[in-house]
Amino acid sequence: MLRNPLLVPDLLELIHAGETSALSEFLSDHHPAHVAEIIEDLGDGEGDSALRLLPDRMQAEVMSYVEPERQVRVVEGMPPADAASLLHLMSHDDRAHLVNRLDDDRADEILRNLAQAEREDIRRLASYEPGTAGAVMTTDYATLPPGLSVREALDRLRRESPDRETIDYSYVVDAAHKLVGIVPLKRLVLARPLVKVADIMQRDIISARLDDDREAVARKVDKYDLYAIPILDASDMLVGIVTHDDAMDILRQEQTEDMLAFGGVSADADSADEGDYWQGRVIQGVRRRIGWLLMLFLAGTVTRYVIHSFDWVDKRFAEIDFDAFIPLLIGTGGNAGSQTVGTIIRGLALGQIQPSDTPRVVAREMLTGLILGLLLGTIGFLFTWLLLRESPTFGLVIALAILGICVWANGIGSLVPLMARKIGVDPALVSAPLISTLVDTTGLIIFYSIAIMLLIRLA
Amino acid sequence: MLRNPLLVPDLLELIHAGETSALSEFLSDHHPAHVAEIIEDLGDGEGDSALRLLPDRMQAEVMSYVEPERQVRVVEGMPPADAASLLHLMSHDDRAHLVNRLDDDRADEILRNLAQAEREDIRRLASYEPGTAGAVMTTDYATLPPGLSVREALDRLRRESPDRETIDYSYVVDAAHKLVGIVPLKRLVLARPLVKVADIMQRDIISARLDDDREAVARKVDKYDLYAIPILDASDMLVGIVTHDDAMDILRQEQTEDMLAFGGVSADADSADEGDYWQGRVIQGVRRRIGWLLMLFLAGTVTRYVIHSFDWVDKRFAEIDFDAFIPLLIGTGGNAGSQTVGTIIRGLALGQIQPSDTPRVVAREMLTGLILGLLLGTIGFLFTWLLLRESPTFGLVIALAILGICVWANGIGSLVPLMARKIGVDPALVSAPLISTLVDTTGLIIFYSIAIMLLIRLA
Repeated sequence: MLRNPLLVPDLLELIHAGETSALSEFLSDHHPAHVAEIIEDLGDGEGDSALRLLPDRMQAEVMSYVEPERQVRVVEGMPPADAASLLHLMSHDDRAHLVNRLDDDRADEILRNLAQAEREDIRRLASYEPGTAGAVMTTDYATLPPGLSVREALDRLRRESPDRETIDYSYVVDAAHKLVGIVPLKRLVLARPLVKVADIMQRDIISARLDDDREAVARKVDKYDLYAIPILDASDMLVGIVTHDDAMDILRQEQTEDMLAFGGVSADADSADEGDYWQGRVIQGVRRRIGWLLMLFLAGTVTRYVIHSFDWVDKRFAEIDFDAFIPLLIGTGGNAGSQTVGTIIRGLALGQIQPSDTPRVVAREMLTGLILGLLLGTIGFLFTWLLLRESPTFGLVIALAILGICVWANGIGSLVPLMARKIGVDPALVSAPLISTLVDTTGLIIFYSIAIMLLIRLA
Repeated sequence: MLRNPLLVPDLLELIHAGETSALSEFLSDHHPAHVAEIIEDLGDGEGDSALRLLPDRMQAEVMSYVEPERQVRVVEGMPPADAASLLHLMSHDDRAHLVNRLDDDRADEILRNLAQAEREDIRRLASYEPGTAGAVMTTDYATLPPGLSVREALDRLRRESPDRETIDYSYVVDAAHKLVGIVPLKRLVLARPLVKVADIMQRDIISARLDDDREAVARKVDKYDLYAIPILDASDMLVGIVTHDDAMDILRQEQTEDMLAFGGVSADADSADEGDYWQGRVIQGVRRRIGWLLMLFLAGTVTRYVIHSFDWVDKRFAEIDFDAFIPLLIGTGGNAGSQTVGTIIRGLALGQIQPSDTPRVVAREMLTGLILGLLLGTIGFLFTWLLLRESPTFGLVIALAILGICVWANGIGSLVPLMARKIGVDPALVSAPLISTLVDTTGLIIFYSIAIMLLIRLA
């Protein structure tokens, strides 16, 4: 767990000895993300102390990298005026998230110490619905009017830049704050000083909407290799930007959520957070898993009735131990289905498959299942006949059951995530365990049906 | 599949009518990524024609977004001199990847038309081992000596910029090309003209090594919110950068690979490529799945022997239909195990869990399994006793079997990926089907052992 084990004892000594200036100097030499890591390693109390000792600007930057609980604790332990100064220096999106976590009275007390414009900015950013572009965008960007000359534009950026996190790209807006172009700082630097901003700005703008899903917005940033994507409201006014680093965080979070969901673990209630493995108690882990597990357990009880209802087959052919083959057969179905659902979820996530492709995809997957089933079925036949010395007829039962189950599992494994997408459910919620459980019951029916047909017909 | 269904017929008409200037003009208004999409939608032949009609610079940009096969086709269809001009305008990393795909004679023929420095740059970039930082970095960056004044630095960037993809960040190198600092264009613009570059550059540099794993490099870009990360060779010389957009692509590819692996599908032989769902024939899909499926099938055959060897228990307690409970019991084990392995792979990928945490993690997961097993076991008891009207003793057998299987499945589901990491195997290769299959056999043994103990003891 400790990522900086050699540093920690030395730093703890500095903290306990009250050597604040040495500590602050040492930490200030590092990247804020690295300082945040050291602070997490110091533990709750000492980590908070170290964070409080940092110089103002460094403190504000490190805040973006430490855990939300610590942010809240540190801000709540400060006089409201100091907390306000800290918020003033923090990035606009991170401070809005932080304010959302404070209790309302405390937030009011702190915000009262800020200028009205800044207070309103925080309140507005904090008010967007979680999961939308609005909730992840920042208002730290520079705007320029189109009529300015390049020299005037550069002067303006120089004047305003201390307040802006980024001026790498400037957003060109008209009098109504409608976005009309984007101009990279690079172009301003390279252009002749008297040229107008409007003449050098990019006009083909890739943008997103305030209420767009945050994952869709992040995918756009990825697809078009953007530095940041401008976010527009319903009347095309520029209201914020989502930067490449935040887009990357969103994609990472969404994809690790997908991995959990594929394993059959429910998402955290607070989906804006990326749950740490160690965070929270064991009982929280239980709560996130019991839902699916219980549902699948109840669905799985059907298998007992199915097998029980075919008991007469076992009795009629008492010399064959049907039941001993069941785990192998339904296990193979579950495995084939898991492969398929993983492949389809990935294809959907990358946009390579559309719900409209359903018939083609399902046909392709069932064909794949047919070939896999022929291969495994042949091996199953040889295993049953030669190794277990059962009759060739029963070997054929096993082979055909494997074939049927593979085709069926691949069909279900492709159909279910595609249907989920069609009805608006996240296909990534279709888990490997769900497909396995669905295939278990039907696999049993396929097995016994083939056994009845072949053994009674050929008997 | 068609993302621009309305455009395609109109564009096909323009192509067939030979209206090349109208076509080129229309496409040039769009973002290169969007043009690439339209070209893919036009199909092979017409798409290639449209790509050939684009103005030089746009053509070079679009090349980065179309599929590798098309890149190869288009370049091979050009006279070598034209292909060389196209390579000259392409981004340094993408053209190196392209040259790697051409056959050697063809590549030589084209490269002969380029200046020596450019030829060497391509050959060097193309020579790094796939999967390393070297193989994904680009050499499109600007360098500055530390002794230059800000005014001189800006003049120099203006002079050189037509040849550079990015000047947003300049890399400050000493006479030996060792990296000593990084200076954002923003800082140059904001600084006074006579200040030295050395006085305003960032000195705390986050960098990576030429032979670092590409995923580790991408994670660093993500963690430190970098615009690009400089890549150093063994003697600390700057040899390239990996930009944020390429880092994002790498993370996306790695994570979708993880999803496939978790489903039990092998990675493509050519792991540098992101396989498209539709690309390749069905037989290729079969080849990527049969390996795991066959191995798991063979492992699964053990279950048949296990059940067969407990046949005497069935015979001794003929009034109980043991076998009818098997799919439910081992299915529950597979589901619990899949949940756990998904959780652990995610924790490992995010760096929240280290292999040194193994005892703590396994203990925590087994405790989680214990609680889940108590809950599901209670329900299993009630189901067996009240609903199926079996004896309370057999209800207890089912309950304890569920409990034991859940604890065991969670232990295996956490231990296996942690062990994989410890011995240097990618833990993401531990799939849900693998864990299910491992748990199947042991689950059967747990079930029958508990049945023997309870039924014979209490009988």
